[in-house]
Amino acid sequence: MLDKAFKEKLMAIVGQDNVLDSKENQVAFSYDATPGFQSLPDAVVFPGSTEDVQAIVKLCREMKTPTVPRGSGTNLSAGTCPVQGGIVLSFQRMDQILELDEENLTLTVQPGVVTQKICEYVEARGFFYPPDPSSMKISTIGGNIMENSGGLRGLKYGVTRDYVLGLTVVLANGDILHTGGKLAKDVAGYDLTRLMVGSEGTLGIVTEAILKLVPPPPSKMTMLSVYESMDDAAETVSAIIAAKIIPATLEFLDRATIEVVEDYAHVGLPTEAAAILLIEQDGDPEVVKRDIQQIADICRKHGARSVQTAQTAEEAQALLTARRTALSACARKRPTTILEDATVPRSKVADMVKAINRIAEKYQLTICTFGHAGDGNLHPTVLTDVRDQDEMARVEKAFQEIFATAIELGGTITGEHGVGAMKAPYLKWKIGDSGIRTMQAIKTALDPDNLLNPGKLFVPDHANSVGTGNPASAPTQTAERMMKK
Amino acid sequence: MLDKAFKEKLMAIVGQDNVLDSKENQVAFSYDATPGFQSLPDAVVFPGSTEDVQAIVKLCREMKTPTVPRGSGTNLSAGTCPVQGGIVLSFQRMDQILELDEENLTLTVQPGVVTQKICEYVEARGFFYPPDPSSMKISTIGGNIMENSGGLRGLKYGVTRDYVLGLTVVLANGDILHTGGKLAKDVAGYDLTRLMVGSEGTLGIVTEAILKLVPPPPSKMTMLSVYESMDDAAETVSAIIAAKIIPATLEFLDRATIEVVEDYAHVGLPTEAAAILLIEQDGDPEVVKRDIQQIADICRKHGARSVQTAQTAEEAQALLTARRTALSACARKRPTTILEDATVPRSKVADMVKAINRIAEKYQLTICTFGHAGDGNLHPTVLTDVRDQDEMARVEKAFQEIFATAIELGGTITGEHGVGAMKAPYLKWKIGDSGIRTMQAIKTALDPDNLLNPGKLFVPDHANSVGTGNPASAPTQTAERMMKK
Repeated sequence: MLDKAFKEKLMAIVGQDNVLDSKENQVAFSYDATPGFQSLPDAVVFPGSTEDVQAIVKLCREMKTPTVPRGSGTNLSAGTCPVQGGIVLSFQRMDQILELDEENLTLTVQPGVVTQKICEYVEARGFFYPPDPSSMKISTIGGNIMENSGGLRGLKYGVTRDYVLGLTVVLANGDILHTGGKLAKDVAGYDLTRLMVGSEGTLGIVTEAILKLVPPPPSKMTMLSVYESMDDAAETVSAIIAAKIIPATLEFLDRATIEVVEDYAHVGLPTEAAAILLIEQDGDPEVVKRDIQQIADICRKHGARSVQTAQTAEEAQALLTARRTALSACARKRPTTILEDATVPRSKVADMVKAINRIAEKYQLTICTFGHAGDGNLHPTVLTDVRDQDEMARVEKAFQEIFATAIELGGTITGEHGVGAMKAPYLKWKIGDSGIRTMQAIKTALDPDNLLNPGKLFVPDHANSVGTGNPASAPTQTAERMMKK
Repeated sequence: MLDKAFKEKLMAIVGQDNVLDSKENQVAFSYDATPGFQSLPDAVVFPGSTEDVQAIVKLCREMKTPTVPRGSGTNLSAGTCPVQGGIVLSFQRMDQILELDEENLTLTVQPGVVTQKICEYVEARGFFYPPDPSSMKISTIGGNIMENSGGLRGLKYGVTRDYVLGLTVVLANGDILHTGGKLAKDVAGYDLTRLMVGSEGTLGIVTEAILKLVPPPPSKMTMLSVYESMDDAAETVSAIIAAKIIPATLEFLDRATIEVVEDYAHVGLPTEAAAILLIEQDGDPEVVKRDIQQIADICRKHGARSVQTAQTAEEAQALLTARRTALSACARKRPTTILEDATVPRSKVADMVKAINRIAEKYQLTICTFGHAGDGNLHPTVLTDVRDQDEMARVEKAFQEIFATAIELGGTITGEHGVGAMKAPYLKWKIGDSGIRTMQAIKTALDPDNLLNPGKLFVPDHANSVGTGNPASAPTQTAERMMKK
């Protein structure tokens, strides 16, 4: 429960109904989609404007209380979990699309708008917003911006970062910062827009965003290519790119994933296959047709057992559903699903998948691997049980080896999920001591009291931190926090 | 001249031949392409490797001496001018293309490679590097990265920032930082790659870069549309975008520019026209043909007097030459040419051009305006004489009004040239006090002694600073520096 005076001040800012600190509400906002991380906030506050956020941040600064911004909580790296308590700022009320500017191809939005709503809104008006994270039906644009979310169309269209032109941000000192604008080009000083994108709520709180739209592709085609060998699938990916074709979507599902997806979605996937590629191309009809034809030839040349092109929009939707439901399908199998996103150069996808399979066998784990093959962005997903301590110890070791392998192959610990609390111990593996020092210097410069989403990105090394609970020291803290309330 | 011990230490790092401090060499590296800015460095040093740069930065830190990185010195905002003296680091020796990775579509380069060489190198091997600043025949990729350079293909393809995947950077503390990689996606911590891009050498010194390549467009077409009224040309720009066509290039030349270009290049431009649009589309042949046809129709519908499509590569080249030579053509007319790059939302191009014409008349100046209409990025170019103090005072006032107008229209003080020393007094107009505070906090965090390219981005207000010499206080310093040597 909140200190009474503090609570009254918060209520004075946002109104009585928009400050919640009952136990039930604390619990409801104590976790995100990351298994094993939970920590109670002191309260949940629902701001209605940039000025509300500014007043809250200033008050929290006075009170030395953390502020943790939150969209829909679909985060997969415990980025939204209030690991040090404090105020969770939920953007449910700030969910308006403010302006579609057709001449400048921009959309101005509040952070709480659900991403799918943005896509549907602009598509209905003849425009296109490409970033499509798998969570888009639930996740908000504010969360997407803070995490620099990817999606299935990333290969051709890029990620959220590539579609943010300007931001309104409340800084830790209470300043309101406006970056960028409805501008195709702007080099007035450091690129604060892109420094904020992907900063996981640790440098500032986004309260408004100007997004870039593009003309919609006039047509698209979807196909499925089935393989008896994972190597053949990986070689196909390289061969498509080598043929100078950049498909809109180039997704990979391994045998384990195919089985659980088919069992869940019943879309007619060949459960005995070693791997499938789901490929989509969009653009002008004649180009799409030619690309898809050429891709089909490449698939067959590289050992595809069958190549199936969707003949109707419904068929295409069914194929896409196969990929989009992968996480839900996995989640049915065992009590705990841990989805990772180690990413490697595209040419190393086959090596990475083989390493994952070897690691799964070594630690006797069930790992389904699927993901954005064209981006080298794989999602090895462990089906496990957080209550089984012995198995969780093996999960921990397996993920450490997966991250180490990704780095060895020239990759990174996270392609689109962020570092959060979960991968903080591994950040150094990617960016080295100088990278950590640089990032920490920026964090300290902009948030000297460490009040914006603390406990994320930067933590000491912990032996035990991937999906097995908060980093080693944190479970105690969390337990203490849970007890205190 | 350098202190003897300091000079010997520098020579121990890079060899005797790679440290120059004669008066002639100091003068040769005392300025860039920005009129009116000149300041002698203490010495010019030519590093051969990342380790050389690291050793030099560490030594300069000990000696409290500024380090100013330099490519070819084509900078238009005095970003390369060593306004506080120190060591100019010239990357002439680090000019190698290190690796073309065909599977991952990346090119790894040293900073001193001339951008045109990169374009030619990858095109000869069937790839495409889109950013094409007008200076590309001379400017280096290191300079392009530090300035986040734009170019004629920016509308469709984006700017340098969009093609930098990873950097090796020497930081002010002497750390070597590796950001990103051959990775389509990477969200491991803050986006240091994009923080460095466009940071004008003030946060770190780039010693290697991994660039993103794309498949080359199979064909392109070029056309010229001629107008009796500037409004018609601006409306055409909006109408093309409204028709959901994004041309590769959409450039604008006003009457004054047409005249000087034709006088210089003799490409057959209609010197009596009020404005011309130079339009290029690339992509699959059938799509290009259809787009160009549709664009031609839109041009005519919006009052184009004539629309001419280049029938041969030579004709297309002639049209592009008209645009690419605009600065050189202007430079012949009067002793001093000052090229600005105020940028506005695309929908405000007509308003901006009108304002520029009004301002030119008010201050009795010759201003040629051309630029990237599709990006809202205009280059009002004053033909003047830096020795005429009365005229320069009017130039100063005119540019202040142009910047103020751009900001009023939702624009920025610089779309692609950077802030440097020249526009530092105006940075606040775009990003406000909170923006300045944020940027300065980052600068201080990463370079506490202010030794990396000091005197750029951040300076106190000056009444007199656009192309009329260094900011108010600086000419004295410069004079002093010139005298001392």
